[in-house]
Amino acid sequence: MEHTLFVVVDLLGTFAFAVSGAVAAKERRLDLFGVYVLAFVTACGGGIVRDLCLGALPPAGISDWRYVACSALAATLAIWAGPWLERLRHPVTFFDSLGLGLFAVAGAHKARAHGANIEVAIMLGTVTAVGGGVARDVLLARVPVILAKEIYALAALVAAVIQVVAEVNGWSVGLTPWFAAAVCLVIRLLALRFSWGLPVVGQPP
Amino acid sequence: MEHTLFVVVDLLGTFAFAVSGAVAAKERRLDLFGVYVLAFVTACGGGIVRDLCLGALPPAGISDWRYVACSALAATLAIWAGPWLERLRHPVTFFDSLGLGLFAVAGAHKARAHGANIEVAIMLGTVTAVGGGVARDVLLARVPVILAKEIYALAALVAAVIQVVAEVNGWSVGLTPWFAAAVCLVIRLLALRFSWGLPVVGQPP
Amino acid sequence: MEHTLFVVVDLLGTFAFAVSGAVAAKERRLDLFGVYVLAFVTACGGGIVRDLCLGALPPAGISDWRYVACSALAATLAIWAGPWLERLRHPVTFFDSLGLGLFAVAGAHKARAHGANIEVAIMLGTVTAVGGGVARDVLLARVPVILAKEIYALAALVAAVIQVVAEVNGWSVGLTPWFAAAVCLVIRLLALRFSWGLPVVGQPP
Repeated sequence: MEHTLFVVVDLLGTFAFAVSGAVAAKERRLDLFGVYVLAFVTACGGGIVRDLCLGALPPAGISDWRYVACSALAATLAIWAGPWLERLRHPVTFFDSLGLGLFAVAGAHKARAHGANIEVAIMLGTVTAVGGGVARDVLLARVPVILAKEIYALAALVAAVIQVVAEVNGWSVGLTPWFAAAVCLVIRLLALRFSWGLPVVGQPP
Repeated sequence: MEHTLFVVVDLLGTFAFAVSGAVAAKERRLDLFGVYVLAFVTACGGGIVRDLCLGALPPAGISDWRYVACSALAATLAIWAGPWLERLRHPVTFFDSLGLGLFAVAGAHKARAHGANIEVAIMLGTVTAVGGGVARDVLLARVPVILAKEIYALAALVAAVIQVVAEVNGWSVGLTPWFAAAVCLVIRLLALRFSWGLPVVGQPP
Repeated sequence: MEHTLFVVVDLLGTFAFAVSGAVAAKERRLDLFGVYVLAFVTACGGGIVRDLCLGALPPAGISDWRYVACSALAATLAIWAGPWLERLRHPVTFFDSLGLGLFAVAGAHKARAHGANIEVAIMLGTVTAVGGGVARDVLLARVPVILAKEIYALAALVAAVIQVVAEVNGWSVGLTPWFAAAVCLVIRLLALRFSWGLPVVGQPP
């Protein structure tokens, strides 16, 4: 995975996730501090849980200033440039979906690099991608969106599986991440376009 | 603690906890993915927090495939075989109560094996037993049941205390776990039978 | 930081935080066990998250009996001596504000002592101070107060920054903690007195 390019896209994913956190915080009328916290938690929460489980301490989300800076920038824009950001809605959705796949790939890769077995790598890859959104919803005292509707976590899971299968078999290190993230992106965009969702279990009340 | 037998009962506890998570997820109308996640979190959440606190990484709940497989099986049954599971209601309550005690014992034992002091072992034993249920309720955006009604965590605490006292004094390793778990089971079943609860503090609104 | 005095004030902060947790639990009508759990989580939750992020395991909150004893005492008083505690309301607010600053200072100091960089020390100092309150509110299924109103976390952040700046520059180790905590205390009391709050972002519904 080409280094500089990876960093750029990783930060784009962080930005997109942070925007979603900040927008959700605005809708719930949190104060200024709350908006920044929620942006950060949404962007970095999944990676922090992954690092705690791997023992990669302190977690990159709090020790690398670029993540904090990136999520602070996203929150600032969400606060002061709402209408401008609104025009970026399609790009934001795009980067969120792209970030989902890239976080899943990067999380699975980091887990393998720390000696984790296949199962751990797949689970932590998925957690990296969706954990921040879950933390955001828990802080907003609502049932996490990913548990109740739309195909979201499943797309991240697919990306993590592809990455782990490739690493285990020693397939091209240069291409796999992009392929895995692209598959995730396509699944996610198709799910959004056609309102795909997993069946809801249980009877209507 | 006889090895194979312990594994069997440990997985029975995991199964029973996973069923309770899956059933709660169905009631709140989560989607298919949400039901599986909630089953897993309920069954393994407590053990994961224990392992994070002990530095036993990666947590057994995500690195040992049997826990995932067992909670996935429980969720599948809860989804597709609801009426059949309904007939298992009494066994499920029984295994949940049994699992409560066994998780408390196993958690306290693992903490001691990692060199934890008495207090840590008692607290992490209890956390192992009740942590999953707390995580389930947090994800469902409701106040954890164990904080508001019924004698539940107290039974787990008693089991953890018995196990730790026995280990510190070097009492029979082979019998103590079963005795501790049995005490927990009896307390829990009596509490269910007679609707025992701790007093609620505070005035009615 | 003079040792004995520090321990005393640290435990006073623990006590004040535990009281706030126990009082919140009473208001939501949790049972006896729930009140004790919430008191403990509010008092020690922030420090536990800090220790998990630093790899200082097991976390001091569960391995040092004084924290448990202190929060249990606070919960007991909140339950049985409510009216008496009510007369202590001003002292409790005072110690809560004092504890806020001292927890932030102690958290930042512990992070530096474990080799954390500046950013980690500031963030974990703040987390130590406010994490317990966030955990309390998550368990009560409500949006954390610190995200929605009043200047609270900001005061802790200021204290953590002062402490870290002082440590990096090698300023007087004996005076800085008290100065930082005092600044936090003054900000907090002024915010309470004059109802200062950060602006709320977003339109009224």
